[in-house]
Amino acid sequence: MRNDRSGKRVCSRPRASIAATLALLAMAAPVPAAARPAAPVFHPRSDDRPFAEAVELGGVLYLSGQIGEAPDGKGLVPGGLESETRRIMERMGQTLRARGLGLDAVFKCTVMLADIQEWPAFNAVYVSYFKPGRYPARSAFGTTGLALGARVELECLAWAG
Amino acid sequence: MRNDRSGKRVCSRPRASIAATLALLAMAAPVPAAARPAAPVFHPRSDDRPFAEAVELGGVLYLSGQIGEAPDGKGLVPGGLESETRRIMERMGQTLRARGLGLDAVFKCTVMLADIQEWPAFNAVYVSYFKPGRYPARSAFGTTGLALGARVELECLAWAG
Amino acid sequence: MRNDRSGKRVCSRPRASIAATLALLAMAAPVPAAARPAAPVFHPRSDDRPFAEAVELGGVLYLSGQIGEAPDGKGLVPGGLESETRRIMERMGQTLRARGLGLDAVFKCTVMLADIQEWPAFNAVYVSYFKPGRYPARSAFGTTGLALGARVELECLAWAG
Repeated sequence: MRNDRSGKRVCSRPRASIAATLALLAMAAPVPAAARPAAPVFHPRSDDRPFAEAVELGGVLYLSGQIGEAPDGKGLVPGGLESETRRIMERMGQTLRARGLGLDAVFKCTVMLADIQEWPAFNAVYVSYFKPGRYPARSAFGTTGLALGARVELECLAWAG
Repeated sequence: MRNDRSGKRVCSRPRASIAATLALLAMAAPVPAAARPAAPVFHPRSDDRPFAEAVELGGVLYLSGQIGEAPDGKGLVPGGLESETRRIMERMGQTLRARGLGLDAVFKCTVMLADIQEWPAFNAVYVSYFKPGRYPARSAFGTTGLALGARVELECLAWAG
Repeated sequence: MRNDRSGKRVCSRPRASIAATLALLAMAAPVPAAARPAAPVFHPRSDDRPFAEAVELGGVLYLSGQIGEAPDGKGLVPGGLESETRRIMERMGQTLRARGLGLDAVFKCTVMLADIQEWPAFNAVYVSYFKPGRYPARSAFGTTGLALGARVELECLAWAG
C-alpha cells in the first residue's frame, strides 16, 4: 500500500479473487466428494460368528441378517415366528441405539422366511415397529432353511446420517 | 495499518491465510461430504402393503421387490413366469419414470424365482429390457415361495442421478 | 482507505466476511455432495451372461453373485461346496485385483446355499479369506437351487475407495 489511494486497490483485490475461488470451490467440491466415501467401519460381533454386527460405509449402516437369538447367545428365543420377529426388532433397535440411531433410520430390508405361509404373521408384527408412510423398501421370500433353524431372518440397511 | 509501509503487510496477511484455508478446505471437504448423505426419502405405496414403493438415499433409489401384480391390484397377471416378468418390468419402468428415470438407471438386481428351472425363461424376457454392456450386476436363486404365489420377484437398485 | 487509521478497518472487513463464508461453505458443502454420485460404471462380462461382472456407483463396487465356475467357463469346478467356495473367493479376488482392490475391500455379503446344512462347511472356508474383526456384514439362507446347479452363490459389495 504505497499511498492512501492505492491502498484501497490492494485491499479490494483479494476480495474479488476470493469470491471467484469460493464460487469455483462450491461448484467443484460435490463431484469428487460423492465418488469417494471414507473407508468402511466394521462393528465386529463379540462372539466368533463369521460376520460383523454391522458395517458402515458412505452414510449407510449395513446390518447383518438378524435372527431371533436368545439373550444368552444359546440358540433362538422360544415361541416361533412371532416371538423371533419381536426379538429381531428388539436386537436391531439395540444395535442402532448403540450408534445413536433408531428404527426410523431403517430404509431397506430383506425378509427371509423358513415358510412363506408365515408372511402375513411376520408382517403383522413387523409393521408395528414402523410408522405408516415410513415403511422401508423391502423384498421377501421363502427359504429352505436359515441358520440355527430360525423361522425368519431380517437384513436391513439404516441411514447412519 | 499504522503507516503506508506496514499497510502492505496488514493487507497481504489475510491473502496468505485465505489461500491456505481454501487449500485445506478443498482437501478436507470430500471426506465428510461423502459420509453424510441427506435423510432417506420414502415413496410410500398407495395401498396398505407393509413396504414402500421405493426409498431414495445417497443418490440410490432402492426399489422394493416387484412381483407381477395385476393393474387392478387384485393378485397377479395371468400367464405365468413370462407375463409376470413383463409386468414387473413395465411396473418398474412406471415407478422409475415417475421420478424422471428410465430402466437404464437400474444397476443392481436380485432375482427370486419360485422355480430355478425357469431361470433361462426369465433371462430371455429380462435381457430384452437392457442394452448389452449395460446389464445390471445381479444374483438369482430359487425360493420355496413368494408373496401372492408369484413365479418371480425382482428387486432392483437404480441410480437416482 | 482514506487515511492510515481507517485503513485498518477497510482491510479487516473482508477477513470477517471471508471467515463467515468459509464457515458456511464448510457446513453447506456435504449435503449436495453426497446426494449426487456420478453415473454407474458397468464392468460387463466377456461372455453372454445376462449380468455385469460388477457395477460401481458412489464408491461401492456391486459384484454379481459368484458361483464356482470353472476357468474354462464350462460349468462348475468339481468337488462340491468347499472347492466351489475356494473358486468363488479366487475369482472374486481376481475381479477385485483388476480394479486395484483386495478382498479386504469387501464389506457386505449374501450367502445363498443349495443346502443350509452346508452353512458350517461354507463358513470354515470363507473365514480363511478375511481377518478377524474385518468380517463383512452378511446374511445367509438355503435356496431350492442356483444357476448351473451350484452348491453356493456369494454376492458381495466392496469399497471402491
